[in-house]
Amino acid sequence: MKIIEPIILKGTREFLPKDMAKRNFVMNKIAKIFQRFGYDNIETPIINPAETILGKYGEEGDRLTYSFKDNGDRLIALPYDLTVPFARLVAANWQNLPMPFKRYQIQRVWRAEKPQKGRLREFYQCDVDLIGTRSLIAEAEIAKIITTVFKELGFKNFVTKFNSRRLLNSILESFEVKEPMKAIQIIDKLAKIGEAAVLELLEKENIKNSQKILDLLKPEKSNSETLKKLSNYDISEIQELLDICKNFQIAEKYLQFDPTLARGLDYYTGVSYEVYSDEADFGALCAGGRYDNLCGMFCNQDFSGVGVAFGFERIILGLEKMGKLEDVKLSSKVLVTIFDENSVKESIDLYSQLTDALINCEIYFEPAKLSKQFKYADKKEIPFVVIQGPEEKEKNEVTIKSMKTGKQKSIPQDQLIFYLKGYYES
Amino acid sequence: MKIIEPIILKGTREFLPKDMAKRNFVMNKIAKIFQRFGYDNIETPIINPAETILGKYGEEGDRLTYSFKDNGDRLIALPYDLTVPFARLVAANWQNLPMPFKRYQIQRVWRAEKPQKGRLREFYQCDVDLIGTRSLIAEAEIAKIITTVFKELGFKNFVTKFNSRRLLNSILESFEVKEPMKAIQIIDKLAKIGEAAVLELLEKENIKNSQKILDLLKPEKSNSETLKKLSNYDISEIQELLDICKNFQIAEKYLQFDPTLARGLDYYTGVSYEVYSDEADFGALCAGGRYDNLCGMFCNQDFSGVGVAFGFERIILGLEKMGKLEDVKLSSKVLVTIFDENSVKESIDLYSQLTDALINCEIYFEPAKLSKQFKYADKKEIPFVVIQGPEEKEKNEVTIKSMKTGKQKSIPQDQLIFYLKGYYES
Repeated sequence: MKIIEPIILKGTREFLPKDMAKRNFVMNKIAKIFQRFGYDNIETPIINPAETILGKYGEEGDRLTYSFKDNGDRLIALPYDLTVPFARLVAANWQNLPMPFKRYQIQRVWRAEKPQKGRLREFYQCDVDLIGTRSLIAEAEIAKIITTVFKELGFKNFVTKFNSRRLLNSILESFEVKEPMKAIQIIDKLAKIGEAAVLELLEKENIKNSQKILDLLKPEKSNSETLKKLSNYDISEIQELLDICKNFQIAEKYLQFDPTLARGLDYYTGVSYEVYSDEADFGALCAGGRYDNLCGMFCNQDFSGVGVAFGFERIILGLEKMGKLEDVKLSSKVLVTIFDENSVKESIDLYSQLTDALINCEIYFEPAKLSKQFKYADKKEIPFVVIQGPEEKEKNEVTIKSMKTGKQKSIPQDQLIFYLKGYYES
Repeated sequence: MKIIEPIILKGTREFLPKDMAKRNFVMNKIAKIFQRFGYDNIETPIINPAETILGKYGEEGDRLTYSFKDNGDRLIALPYDLTVPFARLVAANWQNLPMPFKRYQIQRVWRAEKPQKGRLREFYQCDVDLIGTRSLIAEAEIAKIITTVFKELGFKNFVTKFNSRRLLNSILESFEVKEPMKAIQIIDKLAKIGEAAVLELLEKENIKNSQKILDLLKPEKSNSETLKKLSNYDISEIQELLDICKNFQIAEKYLQFDPTLARGLDYYTGVSYEVYSDEADFGALCAGGRYDNLCGMFCNQDFSGVGVAFGFERIILGLEKMGKLEDVKLSSKVLVTIFDENSVKESIDLYSQLTDALINCEIYFEPAKLSKQFKYADKKEIPFVVIQGPEEKEKNEVTIKSMKTGKQKSIPQDQLIFYLKGYYES
């Protein structure tokens, strides 16, 4: 047989146990928080009729969508994000869904990007959305979830920047900006390209008073100062949101009202969010906002909603950098060694007792040299090994060795489970 | 905008919260058992260089594999199962893996089948494998895992049928069967097409003594009787395996030595397994065995291993049928109602206290009629609602209503968390 090179595609990744344990740890933590606020998990297909994916993300989005013909000559597409598949699911099922409908979804999505550092073709998104209410409590709840996720993952310095598309539009209108969408897309680049470049672009588009506009939009040191500066505009939405966030016990340092925040996508209609942290300086770690008419492309029902997508891969990178994932361990807590040919059966008995007691453990499959068995335990970072040679057997004892300290002690065999359980439950 | 029909492809499925909760419950349960025996999770890409998938499953397999050209004209394939991607991962990483390497993997796979009842194009597999040892303890451990999974999921009548490819070959050789693979593939159909049809097919292939062969292969009432019948052959492997399984505390009723078991795939070289249950009568619920040289297609290293794939979708169907998943609930345990316009802030305070106390709950986003809020709780099967109207507020109390019994009682507000936690932790 010809040997095939065991490669994966550029821009995709495979995950060995250690990385996978870290990813599962973070994913579970995020999912548990979503659940705490009453969001339930859904799942949508990976192969889809192309018409349910294409044409929803603009030309660039279509170009980056993986699509192909199947054996039946039907055009198939892989999801580009989780929002459009969510919209489709709602359109297909809204009669049977509770409203408001609160869902989270953690799945892979695909983009046919040129593979380069930080650009993946296959990656996870973590979306949390609620639809079917226009209440501002929804916006505040999303802010609370964001804060809870980043705090509980171990971030210390992070901020949820937020703005209102409505407010931004009314400010631009007051300056008689003819095509606010164009201005918004330029202002959106402020963090990336800096003020001078933004001004230049605005002037190129013949937007007058661009310096004045930017000065007005730039956030002040506190939310109240920024609001004060904009007191000529209708800032009631922002004020009310900040009030509700106070009820949600979100500390003010986690929220920054930033009138320059624009979000490129044009489907945001109200409040929008972007989360940044200098502990994970890879751009926005989470983003989203209020949208109207989510399902308009799929049905005649009109659902307003609000939600955000967490950038799972960036969050993992940040947590790695902060050393927050170093304590995540593999499954096994104990390796039962096999001392020699004559103790195989006893060792299996021991192993079976431990697994029946719900202790995560394993057995070394052969009566190899103990040093080899220890080496295996080391490689898998198994904290304890259990040894029962003829001496221990004679006394009905087992020896427990800590792989970390190298210390070992013998205890009566019938105390082993008690000992190990005590260790893991303390 | 043209409205697109919100459909999914035939043979694919979407999962709403209730189904998803059940699936997650079962998946977590299975994963936890794999972990208990020292198996760690890995993940492999969904889009792959086609040459790492195609040509590994025969002509039929290639035809059923989803493959397509990407924008860069590179041929891509979606996984057909999890074994070949696992083999590729091992071939690419074996120098850094602990050996034996124990992994589990729960992912979707794709087959371009004609969609029909029970045939999906996109479905989950749950694989557990260990490679890098030829010890029979490995075979017994896999049998133990199978037994543990089905027992803990709530199956009562199930049996792991097992056989040895080596033994089957030697029996066929003793009857001078020239092409044992052909005979094996026919015998494999015994359960499906019955004895008469198998005999006919064997005779068509000019296999002599086919009745004698079948009589010899058919399992007796107990494993020891079957072994006795075959005492002229080398049955030491089966005997030893049954002995080790005893050490693993696997009750004998869960294991049936069935010499007719053949498993169509020709890469099994030693023991093979198939699990059946009359509680989920959809064919094998789990299958696999010992294979040699798993990675031969991807590298010059030779790894023997043993593993099984659990048929996740069939197991779910079985558990549904047995009513074992009826108690799986959605996230929210409590709905905090909003009594009227004046109590919005207090209700958010209450909600925030509950979520901060890690109680899964939610708030109704508007001060709607209480009956409407209760209806929402009912639809989401939320067991408790919390009400705080002006009367309760005056007395610093909250009212808790059980949606199941309809009963309600008022308690001091500062006891609410204690009350709800007590309820869920008892």
